[in-house]
Amino acid sequence: MDYYKAALELHEKYKGKIAVSPKVELKTREDLSTEYTPGVAAPCMKIAENPEDVYRYTAKGNLVAVVTDGTAILGLGDIGPQAGLPVMEGKALLFKALGDVDAFPICLDTKDVDEIVETVCRIAPGFGGINLEDISAPRCFEVEAKLKERLDIPVFHDDQHGTAIILLAALINALKVVDKKIGDIRVVISGAGSAGTAIGKLIMRYGVRHLVYCDRNGVLNRDTALNSAQLELCDVTNPEDLHGTIADALKGADVFIGVSAPGIVTSEMIATMNHDAIVFPMANPTPEIMPDEALKGGARVVGTGRSDFPNQINNVLVFPGLFRGALDVRARSISEGMKLAAAEALAALVSDEERNEQYILPGVLDPRAAKAVAKAVAEEARKTGIARI
Amino acid sequence: MDYYKAALELHEKYKGKIAVSPKVELKTREDLSTEYTPGVAAPCMKIAENPEDVYRYTAKGNLVAVVTDGTAILGLGDIGPQAGLPVMEGKALLFKALGDVDAFPICLDTKDVDEIVETVCRIAPGFGGINLEDISAPRCFEVEAKLKERLDIPVFHDDQHGTAIILLAALINALKVVDKKIGDIRVVISGAGSAGTAIGKLIMRYGVRHLVYCDRNGVLNRDTALNSAQLELCDVTNPEDLHGTIADALKGADVFIGVSAPGIVTSEMIATMNHDAIVFPMANPTPEIMPDEALKGGARVVGTGRSDFPNQINNVLVFPGLFRGALDVRARSISEGMKLAAAEALAALVSDEERNEQYILPGVLDPRAAKAVAKAVAEEARKTGIARI
Repeated sequence: MDYYKAALELHEKYKGKIAVSPKVELKTREDLSTEYTPGVAAPCMKIAENPEDVYRYTAKGNLVAVVTDGTAILGLGDIGPQAGLPVMEGKALLFKALGDVDAFPICLDTKDVDEIVETVCRIAPGFGGINLEDISAPRCFEVEAKLKERLDIPVFHDDQHGTAIILLAALINALKVVDKKIGDIRVVISGAGSAGTAIGKLIMRYGVRHLVYCDRNGVLNRDTALNSAQLELCDVTNPEDLHGTIADALKGADVFIGVSAPGIVTSEMIATMNHDAIVFPMANPTPEIMPDEALKGGARVVGTGRSDFPNQINNVLVFPGLFRGALDVRARSISEGMKLAAAEALAALVSDEERNEQYILPGVLDPRAAKAVAKAVAEEARKTGIARI
Repeated sequence: MDYYKAALELHEKYKGKIAVSPKVELKTREDLSTEYTPGVAAPCMKIAENPEDVYRYTAKGNLVAVVTDGTAILGLGDIGPQAGLPVMEGKALLFKALGDVDAFPICLDTKDVDEIVETVCRIAPGFGGINLEDISAPRCFEVEAKLKERLDIPVFHDDQHGTAIILLAALINALKVVDKKIGDIRVVISGAGSAGTAIGKLIMRYGVRHLVYCDRNGVLNRDTALNSAQLELCDVTNPEDLHGTIADALKGADVFIGVSAPGIVTSEMIATMNHDAIVFPMANPTPEIMPDEALKGGARVVGTGRSDFPNQINNVLVFPGLFRGALDVRARSISEGMKLAAAEALAALVSDEERNEQYILPGVLDPRAAKAVAKAVAEEARKTGIARI
């Protein structure tokens, strides 16, 4: 199927993918007087008296802003806020279809970190959560950190943490398949941008102790680091400041995780990895190495971002349920614990009997995913005092 | 019926009044690949190549931001952006139900004119129009003027112009009932805020030559004017800088328009007006004079903002159709001509046979209103080169 052609036809036919729709009927003068003036003054006054009542009488509690500046749209790069709109509408569609979350695209006409932060803070009163999307690194780190500091609603950069969570879920189950322990494995991540950074942080938090980053110049070190965020990664992952190629890094490694560029890994490199290698080349649409090549090199478990191979690793399994759970308990933020809980809940959806080399994650449209993630996230938020209700 | 109680129940039951809903189904992996990755890259690239394609492939062309800073919510005043949310949701509901316009509330956490302007400009890429709402005077004038200058999509402050348009429509038909000419009448407007200012400007543009403003201090003059906007009104309406009470102003006047405070006009004052007086006391929920009192004083045509008396003058008849028409032709702005066209189209919905003292406007939920306004506005925009298509 030609998805490009089909997508153009569909987007043109419906003029985009989302609408704003009433939850109540407006047929009579009584409806008008209840839904608008004079009746509407009553919920307004209640909220003015008690700000928390905004969750009781308005849509805020179920509304998430999908915010982008258009600088890192899919693999297309900085194509601007308007050209990013179809992706943001798509995201809103997935939020609703999979998590029953009302999500609305906010495409920003600025790339300045402080302007992005100011703007999001100013429009925040109407939203129950902020999903940052397709903002390029390293700006995305700063934007997220500043917003988390200033807002008391969940702020989540999906490209970082959604990807990290689903990757961790995949890793948890893949390790069970190959019977290795998280503390023992050696991991190589290719790509030290927003997704790679978040993946590294989350899997280390989960127990990974040996991790090396590579980028287009080979092993990430103090000479090749592009910014302070990458220098920080060097401190943690390459304290001895080793230099080398990605081929060097892969020798003896147990896990390869790619969030970088198509075709940069060969089956010969995979052949130098440790036995029972786990290979997650997730560059889209063309992975760092095609699954059949990875298997030829001796990999035992292979997962990609693609739907046409086994083990699709896609954050669609994460964000609808994560925000569902966070909104359900009016979480003040998304904690590391909530992210780990989400990953574990997703991994647990594959039973011991079902789990094998070709089945480490539920299908991307599995309706159990959002429910399980929401439940786990809400419980963790309640347990740790992040929940408001 | 207790609309306050009914409103609280309804708002709590549905948790607000609007949702964001998909226009397309998401059931299969094919749907996911067409509506999201990889297919969604195709419309993104089209828009990156040709920015106008954003109207072809996204919801932008039918989306209006309903923007407030919460400073002048209904008659409740500065209750803040969150407490204003029920009104903004109500507005979005009316936009959709009456004009099939997708409208979304943006409640701003700032009262600074330049910050409001900056914020709206930064979120504008995703919207086809901006409806300003319940922003207090005189800041609203500056906000609107600056946004009109910077944006190439319609910007419309409904409290000003929606009210002015519906008032002009009412005046056109009332003058027919009493058989007076627009150029001959003497008009008194009580209230020199956002609505009063816009009403004065629009009816003068339509032909009114004798106009006096009053506020709580009586006839507006250079001593009582509160700001530069009101000083400007003095220049136009009171060049001789006359002083006096509202009672003085009403003597011999043909038309009273109230957008001020309850109960400030008596039937004795109405009795001093010219024969066949037109009285539009629109303060909400309690008018400047109750209709029966106005009639007792000798008024011939009386209209208020209320639904429980004849001749309800409510901008619900205006904004859904106005934006419908502007969006249909991708208008760059809303011109004075488009406002006049809207008023005339509304007035024309009452035929010569139907028109009388108690029937000068169609009912607020008359489905013909939005259609007629949209058609007239679109035609005027096309005729004057404001339309893009």
